[in-house]
Amino acid sequence: MQLQMDAGALTVFLAREFGQVADEFEVERADAAGVGMRLKVGEKHLRPGGTVSGPTIFLLADVAMYLAILARIGPVALTVTTNCAIDFMRKPVAGRDLLGEARVLKLGRSLAVGDVMVFSEGLAEPVARASLTYAIPPKD
Amino acid sequence: MQLQMDAGALTVFLAREFGQVADEFEVERADAAGVGMRLKVGEKHLRPGGTVSGPTIFLLADVAMYLAILARIGPVALTVTTNCAIDFMRKPVAGRDLLGEARVLKLGRSLAVGDVMVFSEGLAEPVARASLTYAIPPKD
Amino acid sequence: MQLQMDAGALTVFLAREFGQVADEFEVERADAAGVGMRLKVGEKHLRPGGTVSGPTIFLLADVAMYLAILARIGPVALTVTTNCAIDFMRKPVAGRDLLGEARVLKLGRSLAVGDVMVFSEGLAEPVARASLTYAIPPKD
Amino acid sequence: MQLQMDAGALTVFLAREFGQVADEFEVERADAAGVGMRLKVGEKHLRPGGTVSGPTIFLLADVAMYLAILARIGPVALTVTTNCAIDFMRKPVAGRDLLGEARVLKLGRSLAVGDVMVFSEGLAEPVARASLTYAIPPKD
Repeated sequence: MQLQMDAGALTVFLAREFGQVADEFEVERADAAGVGMRLKVGEKHLRPGGTVSGPTIFLLADVAMYLAILARIGPVALTVTTNCAIDFMRKPVAGRDLLGEARVLKLGRSLAVGDVMVFSEGLAEPVARASLTYAIPPKD
Repeated sequence: MQLQMDAGALTVFLAREFGQVADEFEVERADAAGVGMRLKVGEKHLRPGGTVSGPTIFLLADVAMYLAILARIGPVALTVTTNCAIDFMRKPVAGRDLLGEARVLKLGRSLAVGDVMVFSEGLAEPVARASLTYAIPPKD
Repeated sequence: MQLQMDAGALTVFLAREFGQVADEFEVERADAAGVGMRLKVGEKHLRPGGTVSGPTIFLLADVAMYLAILARIGPVALTVTTNCAIDFMRKPVAGRDLLGEARVLKLGRSLAVGDVMVFSEGLAEPVARASLTYAIPPKD
Repeated sequence: MQLQMDAGALTVFLAREFGQVADEFEVERADAAGVGMRLKVGEKHLRPGGTVSGPTIFLLADVAMYLAILARIGPVALTVTTNCAIDFMRKPVAGRDLLGEARVLKLGRSLAVGDVMVFSEGLAEPVARASLTYAIPPKD
């Protein structure tokens, strides 16, 4: 399997298309196994009680899977999330970055499916698990 | 069924416990049927292509269901989301607020389950549908 | 909105295409709001402890939503389930039929999304809630 | 981590508590990584078009995860499924057994979460992926 985009190309794509959130992220790895992303946790991602918010975890899962698909099909910007099922299993640590490990399980012509494990840096056990489906627009 | 918190009490709770996001929201309704929330869509909620981001829709679903549960059980701040399944069905309109209609389907001693329909103001058909589960901490 | 198939046509379709399970079901209603199905609970659907099994509830949700979509698009037999998220909320009563109320929330060209509330006959509160996505094959 | 039940003990438990479906299954493996189950596909699991039915896949995922949890906590028969999100990704081959690989991702006092990959014997790519949550009854 050959990747259409590597970590560098995904980083450029993210900055160009998702300027509003791009600087919160770092593409750490893009290979045949999938994509590894870091979300640099800051003040705005926190919730009272010293933890990272659920929507922040969702954001990381969504971006990581999106880039894992694009790594395989190239920069098809109109690919959209159609479904996500997410389990929040443990509290992330407030002062630690989140790490997302995304892998593509199915890459069809019109649908792609994958899952993401989310970790709080330094904890061995995942804080969340998500599965996501994306609709890929038909080629003209 | 008697509510423990009405729209005013939920608004006060939101401002106190979730100061970072409280001013994006308005509790429009809290009654036996559930809770109606408005998310005031601004620049930071948008995505290229003129639409509202998926994490913003998730945020609205999560907050609306959380408050629908608290309306029934009172201000139990440690209640946490354990699961969410969300279908993104249509593109929200960029310049319109999002409206979330949350209803509680089960209120057990330790788990609460409900669903949320999300609308883009002015569109008759829902843009998203979410079901969510929350763990309620045991009373001492 | 005009239905392509009414309750009678759906019953005929079910018997022809799903002979193995058709006699467990009854199409009670098919109208603009969706489809109402009855699953006639028998010995084989039960679990120890006097309840109906989870896979039986899943089966009802899947068949009810499938027919709700076909009522709208006609007998497209190759339509397949791609995703289901289901919450089991209460124990069904062992000796009672299950009732499923399916509604279509989105009917696109290639994807249909809907949800189903499942009741144990005689109980006011739902025993389960499911959301399902189906892929509709392209027309030639 | 020490298992409370090995493959043999799980097989005995399944026969005693789930006599109606036990002979369709084989526990192939139970270790620290999780549980591997085989569903012996027969006539009653098939759908027209030469494939295995969705409810059969759901059944395998549910049983595999249930036993993976019991392997860790022992024979707590009242443990119940509260949620399942399942993606159907490829058509299983009609004449082949299904194989389920279940792993536990979280084992809390009252909730357990895990996921299952389902394979059609002989195909390298999974036919389905499920995540499931179970409620564990409190100990007296």
